[in-house]
Amino acid sequence: MQFADRLKNVETSAIRELFKLLGKPGIISFAGGFPDPALFDVDGIRQATDAVLSNNPGAVLQYGATEGWNPLREGLSAHMAKKGIAARPDEIITTTGSQQALDLIGKTMINPGDKVIVEAPTFLATIQCFRLYGADLVTAPVDADGVQVDALEKLIVEHKPKLVYLIPTFGNPSGAMLSLERRKRVLELAAKYQVLVVEDDPYGELFFGATPPPTLLALSAEVPGSREWLAYCGSFSKVLSPGLRVGWMIAQPALLANAVMCKQFSDAHTSNLTQAIAAQYLALGRLDGALAQVRVTYAERAQMMADCLRKELGDAVSFSAPQGGMFFWASLTGAGGKEKDAAEFAKRAIDKLVAFVPGNPFFANHADRSTFRLSFATADLAKIQEGVARLGQAL
Amino acid sequence: MQFADRLKNVETSAIRELFKLLGKPGIISFAGGFPDPALFDVDGIRQATDAVLSNNPGAVLQYGATEGWNPLREGLSAHMAKKGIAARPDEIITTTGSQQALDLIGKTMINPGDKVIVEAPTFLATIQCFRLYGADLVTAPVDADGVQVDALEKLIVEHKPKLVYLIPTFGNPSGAMLSLERRKRVLELAAKYQVLVVEDDPYGELFFGATPPPTLLALSAEVPGSREWLAYCGSFSKVLSPGLRVGWMIAQPALLANAVMCKQFSDAHTSNLTQAIAAQYLALGRLDGALAQVRVTYAERAQMMADCLRKELGDAVSFSAPQGGMFFWASLTGAGGKEKDAAEFAKRAIDKLVAFVPGNPFFANHADRSTFRLSFATADLAKIQEGVARLGQAL
Repeated sequence: MQFADRLKNVETSAIRELFKLLGKPGIISFAGGFPDPALFDVDGIRQATDAVLSNNPGAVLQYGATEGWNPLREGLSAHMAKKGIAARPDEIITTTGSQQALDLIGKTMINPGDKVIVEAPTFLATIQCFRLYGADLVTAPVDADGVQVDALEKLIVEHKPKLVYLIPTFGNPSGAMLSLERRKRVLELAAKYQVLVVEDDPYGELFFGATPPPTLLALSAEVPGSREWLAYCGSFSKVLSPGLRVGWMIAQPALLANAVMCKQFSDAHTSNLTQAIAAQYLALGRLDGALAQVRVTYAERAQMMADCLRKELGDAVSFSAPQGGMFFWASLTGAGGKEKDAAEFAKRAIDKLVAFVPGNPFFANHADRSTFRLSFATADLAKIQEGVARLGQAL
Repeated sequence: MQFADRLKNVETSAIRELFKLLGKPGIISFAGGFPDPALFDVDGIRQATDAVLSNNPGAVLQYGATEGWNPLREGLSAHMAKKGIAARPDEIITTTGSQQALDLIGKTMINPGDKVIVEAPTFLATIQCFRLYGADLVTAPVDADGVQVDALEKLIVEHKPKLVYLIPTFGNPSGAMLSLERRKRVLELAAKYQVLVVEDDPYGELFFGATPPPTLLALSAEVPGSREWLAYCGSFSKVLSPGLRVGWMIAQPALLANAVMCKQFSDAHTSNLTQAIAAQYLALGRLDGALAQVRVTYAERAQMMADCLRKELGDAVSFSAPQGGMFFWASLTGAGGKEKDAAEFAKRAIDKLVAFVPGNPFFANHADRSTFRLSFATADLAKIQEGVARLGQAL
């Protein structure tokens, strides 16, 4: 059987390898990108589910509009307003997780050979998603304050990209938070060069201390001409439940209309039932309370991981402790003659029954092989202590 | 903003026009492709939902495998066995409605410019879905016994298509049922010419009298070499609930593996919650009872529509009464000097407060403008009488 040529653009062996790591019994995993299911507000979701199946079963079980379930679009409009984002319900479409928003952006925007700028490192499913549409990915450097905007401007001028994809708040895998000053520069670049900027924001609610700077979308009100060059992707996966598969996208009308057309032929619409549950959950007013619990728990785990990494690995590892999200992004320094290749380190770690993800697959090109990602979201404090101690033994 | 060139392949104005038809107050609609929500087994779905949220909330609300929720894949394997289809759970993947199965087939198989054979007429979202991947569609003629296999063979020889897409059982919009003899010929053609045949089967359970011939997939056991050239798409949308967005695909391992890879970057996975509800619903053993009710109701409505069409429109309209599914496919004969253009007829019908879909958009090319589609699924018997009487007045 002769498959489509676009499949040749995608390298999945790295990803498959990652998942194989996780099967060993007794393993402590820092490898996943999953939220902690113990923090799901199951009572609230049950209450919301009961309500929608009691009040409106015919509609939630029937076909629905491709744009989304209207009560959810209205609820999201109000939810976004709390983050300083003015978006009418008709400026929001719902998607089958924010992964689908990325897919619809790819389908709507990318011709084979188009340049697309992503952060180095970035979310690996974005790399693969855009490559399936034939994107030629260009990487922009990142530090603890997010993408380096002078370098980004040079890349935009040089490559004239179709779009720039960023995770400004608590990046995956970088954990970085784009500074307020850089956010404004990114918006100025979008307006100046008329280049679409995709703001992927699954982690923005997971801050440990101070509230992060406003989203690019919220700030766009201050930068004339920038909003029409922004597409914002939101998700309930890290704050409510990934199993519902409910995300959303906010963008200018023509882009949204084309994305809706593509969605019509991708999956017709997102499940009305899960959209209605999310809408009803928002209406119950429980999200803030659930989020507060998630923030406290993840903050403790992040603190524990930082303390243990310093204690167990010392100067053999460098990292910036994240201020939110789910990830530590670290690199092996080679100090004291220790291992500098994270893939080798990962193999030895597996032998010691602890798993993480080497940084390699998060780079669209020019991988930094000393890097690796640790998630602190699903392991409790004792597991984090024990797991990082095993990392120390492995190194 | 410069969108991707693939959007130029798709004509959606015809579809948008269709949906605009339905807004008028007091209208009787035969236009939709929706099942009757009054026939949804809401009690069964509630019972299944309560069970999965009580027994397994952490897992159904968490991320899941791209291939699908394993209890559902197991349930589908057993469900398919009742239809004579031998498919292990690992030969089945779940999709976000069967629309996504079509999208994944397009993404996995179609290069821009590839020829794809579809029936004339066929499901319009398939036409648009495949065209977004650049397919050059070729149409094969259909009669009441389904696609004409001699013509199909000639088209395969001439065009060397990447795939052939068929709705063998109660086609949308044709209502046609592919005969047993022709099913075997289609399988022989698949094996002989090594061409992928996609069997889309959303309506196969909705038979009014005798059980339809076995699916192509079931029959493939009798035609050596054919099974590896088959992809079967199933759906709960017409038999349980479209709002759940749960469909499935059965195909040979390499095609399935590539489809799973594409799905990973399309929406990560289908909602675990709705998959678990479908699995639990199958386990409750209520589907056969619910289906029996749907069959009886739709059979009565189809009979009423046939009787009324003959009485009210006489020889001005020709049609074959369907033996299942949701649609009448009819054409204007022009007898007695009456209207022969279905689009004109549709406009006059809207003036009389009855809606249907002119046949034009269901043809990938060479539209037969005398044709139109009537759905009898959502109107009760009195509405069908009144609606068809209005059609008579409009003509």
